[in-house]
Amino acid sequence: MNWQDIFATRMGRMKASEIRELLKLLDQPDIISFAGGIPDPAMFPTKAFQDAMVDALSPQNSDAALQYSVSEGYAPLRDWIVEQMTALGVPCTRDNILITSGSQQALDYLGKLMLSPNDTALVTWPTYMGALGAFNAYEPTFDRLIPGGNRSASDYAQTAQEAGGRVKFAYASVDFANPTGETLDLNARENILKLADDLDIAVIEDSAYQSLRYDGDPIPPMLALEIARKGSIEDCRTLYCGSFSKSLAPGLRVGWVCGASHVISQLVLMKQAADLHSSTINQMAINSVARSVFDAHTATLRTTYSARRDAMLGALETHMPTGVTWTKPEGGMFVWVTLPKHMNGGDLLRASLETQRVAFVPGQAFFADRSGANTLRLSFSLANDTKINEGIKRLGAVIRAEM
Amino acid sequence: MNWQDIFATRMGRMKASEIRELLKLLDQPDIISFAGGIPDPAMFPTKAFQDAMVDALSPQNSDAALQYSVSEGYAPLRDWIVEQMTALGVPCTRDNILITSGSQQALDYLGKLMLSPNDTALVTWPTYMGALGAFNAYEPTFDRLIPGGNRSASDYAQTAQEAGGRVKFAYASVDFANPTGETLDLNARENILKLADDLDIAVIEDSAYQSLRYDGDPIPPMLALEIARKGSIEDCRTLYCGSFSKSLAPGLRVGWVCGASHVISQLVLMKQAADLHSSTINQMAINSVARSVFDAHTATLRTTYSARRDAMLGALETHMPTGVTWTKPEGGMFVWVTLPKHMNGGDLLRASLETQRVAFVPGQAFFADRSGANTLRLSFSLANDTKINEGIKRLGAVIRAEM
Repeated sequence: MNWQDIFATRMGRMKASEIRELLKLLDQPDIISFAGGIPDPAMFPTKAFQDAMVDALSPQNSDAALQYSVSEGYAPLRDWIVEQMTALGVPCTRDNILITSGSQQALDYLGKLMLSPNDTALVTWPTYMGALGAFNAYEPTFDRLIPGGNRSASDYAQTAQEAGGRVKFAYASVDFANPTGETLDLNARENILKLADDLDIAVIEDSAYQSLRYDGDPIPPMLALEIARKGSIEDCRTLYCGSFSKSLAPGLRVGWVCGASHVISQLVLMKQAADLHSSTINQMAINSVARSVFDAHTATLRTTYSARRDAMLGALETHMPTGVTWTKPEGGMFVWVTLPKHMNGGDLLRASLETQRVAFVPGQAFFADRSGANTLRLSFSLANDTKINEGIKRLGAVIRAEM
Repeated sequence: MNWQDIFATRMGRMKASEIRELLKLLDQPDIISFAGGIPDPAMFPTKAFQDAMVDALSPQNSDAALQYSVSEGYAPLRDWIVEQMTALGVPCTRDNILITSGSQQALDYLGKLMLSPNDTALVTWPTYMGALGAFNAYEPTFDRLIPGGNRSASDYAQTAQEAGGRVKFAYASVDFANPTGETLDLNARENILKLADDLDIAVIEDSAYQSLRYDGDPIPPMLALEIARKGSIEDCRTLYCGSFSKSLAPGLRVGWVCGASHVISQLVLMKQAADLHSSTINQMAINSVARSVFDAHTATLRTTYSARRDAMLGALETHMPTGVTWTKPEGGMFVWVTLPKHMNGGDLLRASLETQRVAFVPGQAFFADRSGANTLRLSFSLANDTKINEGIKRLGAVIRAEM
C-alpha cells in the first residue's frame, strides 16, 4: 500500500522536528535544561485542583462533569473569562468566548477558519513555532510582519496575490513572546491594527503569557485598542487567544478565543465537527480554581519567575563573551540570545550537550524562512538560581569554545 | 470588514444544523426525548472517577497530571488499550496507538490526514452525522459505500476522478452503528476490505459502541480480519477508532486510533501541531478507571441498556402503525425507523414536539446526499421503561395522525 498517495497534500509539510527529537532524550539528571518552555510543576496550585475535582465529582455536579457538553464551552467559565477580558479593556459577553483545548487549539482553529491553500499569513520573524506548525496544516504562504516596519499594505497584498491567494491575517504574540521574550509596545500594536485595517484582514493576538508581567506597565491588548477605536467588539477584526496553561496548569488543556460573536459562532461549528467540546470536567475544575486562586496564584508565579529571570539576566551579563546579545524580558519565560553571525545554534546545542550538558532550543525553527541560525531560546521557568548560574556559565564556556 | 472574504473556502460547508438548534430547546421536563445519543449519567462510574482523580492529584502523580505531556498519549493508557485490542484479535504495541480527545477528534484527524479538496470519501447512506461533519472540513466529495453491494472498484475510482480527486478511504461504523443500530456482518466487513485493497485506499473503522453488545456473537473488527490475512498491523490499511465515551464517560474526551505505526506517527505530528496532546490528567484518570472497573462497568451498562432496547422494540411492536419498519439492534443505543415514503422526519418532529412532546432525530442529516427524509433515529439509552413505552405510544399516535 502506498500511503504517500493516500495522504493529503498538507502532510508533506508536517515533519518531525530534529530538535524536538534531540530534546526528547534529555531526561538525564546531570543536564541543565533551558529548553522546555513549560511551567515549573512545583508551582502548580495542586490543592486548589484537588478541591475543584472533588467538587466537580460531588453528587450535585458529577452527572454534568462526566457528560457531553456544549461546543461553546462551560458557561460559568466563559463568564469568568468575560470578567477578566472586561478588566483588560475588552468589554464582551459570553457569546464572544469559545473555550478551546489550550490556546494551541485556538491557533489551529483560527488557521482552519481562515486559510485556504496559498493564502498568506503574516507572522513575525521569529515567531511562536507552534503557530507556524498549526497554520502550516492549511498550506499557507508566510510573509514577514514587521510591527515597527513601514512596508505598505499594497506591497503585502501584491506579494500574497503572487503567491496565489490573499493575506488572511496577521499573527502576533504580544506580551513577552515565545521565543523572544519581547513585548510589542503601544505603537507596534497600533501599527498592526492599522495594517490590518488597510489590508482588511483579521488579527490573531496570542496572549498566552499575559498574566506573567514582572515589571513595566501593562499595555492594552490589541483587541482593547481596537474596541477603543471602533466602539464594540462586534466590529473588531482582532481575535484574542488566551490560555490557562501558564497561569494555572497546562495538563487540563483549557484556553479560549475572544472575538466578534459571529466569528465565534463559526468557530463553534468547527469545534463541534472537530472534537465536540473540550473536556467538561476540566472546564469545571479550571473555573473553580480560577475563581478561588487566580490572582493570588499568578502573584506567586510572578515573584518566583521574576527572580529566575533576574538570575538569568545577571548570569548572562557575567558569563557571556563579547559579541553575544540577549533580550531583557519584562515577563514570561524566555530570553532570546543572538550569537555572532557565523555561529549556528544547532551545532552549538550538539556541542553543549556533549561537553557541557546544557540544553536550550536553537532559534532557527522559530523563523518561517528558516533564517536565524545564530539564535537561541533560553527558558528560565524551570531552574533555580544556582542551576541558572551554573548553566549559563557552562553555556558561556561552550560559546567561547565554538566562537 | 467582510469576513466572508477572510474565511477559508471550507467554511462554506459548515452550517448550523437546524435540527440541532431545535433540539437545543428541549430541556423542558414534560418532553420525552429519544433524541440525544448520549449515555445515561445515572450509570457513570462516579466513585471510580473520584478515586482516580484523587490518585492523579496525589503527591507522587500531581506534577505529571497537571503538566504538558507527549502528543502520543499517556503510555500506561496506551498499554491498556494494547491489551484490549490484542484481545479483539489486533495484536499491536504502544506505537500503534494514538490517544485522541474522543473518537470525534480521531475522525477529524483522519480526514485531515487523507483528504485534499475534491478527494472522495466513501460512506454508507446513512452514516454517522459527526463523521460527515468532521470530513466535510477538508472539502471532499462523498460517494456511497454499499457493504453488500457489487459496484466495481473501477467504477468508484472513475467517479472519484470525475469529481477531481481520488478515493482516499472507506468509512464504516461496524457495531450497532449510529444512527441505524445495525452491525456489519463478517461478509460485509470482508467486502469492504476487498474493495479497499482493489482501490488501494484506507479503511476507517469506527468502533465507538464496541463494548455495548447485548446479544449475538461478537464479530472481529475489520482491523483483526485484515491482520489475519496480512500477518501484521504494519501492513494493514485499516485505522480503528475507539472511544471511552460510551463505555466510561464522554466528559473527559478520551478516545484512540489504532493502526500501522508509520501512520500513527503522522497523526502524532498532526496532533502536536493541532492541540499538543489530550488532557494529561484525564488520560491518567481514564487509565485508572479502565483498569479498575472496565469489565464490571460495561457488564452493568449492557444489562441496563439491553433492557431499554427490549422495552423500545416491544413498544414499537405494540404502537407503530402498519407501514412503519425499524431495525433490531444487537447493541448500542439506537433504533432506526423508516416511515412510509411520503412522510418527512423533520415535519414529524415539529408535529411531535407540538402535539405529543416527544423528541427524536430526523434521519436526513445522516445522509451525505440528503436523502432519507422518511427516516428517524430513536435512542433508548436515556429513558426508563415507562417513559419508553409512553413515548413510543405518543410517537405512534403522531405518526398515525401525519400518515
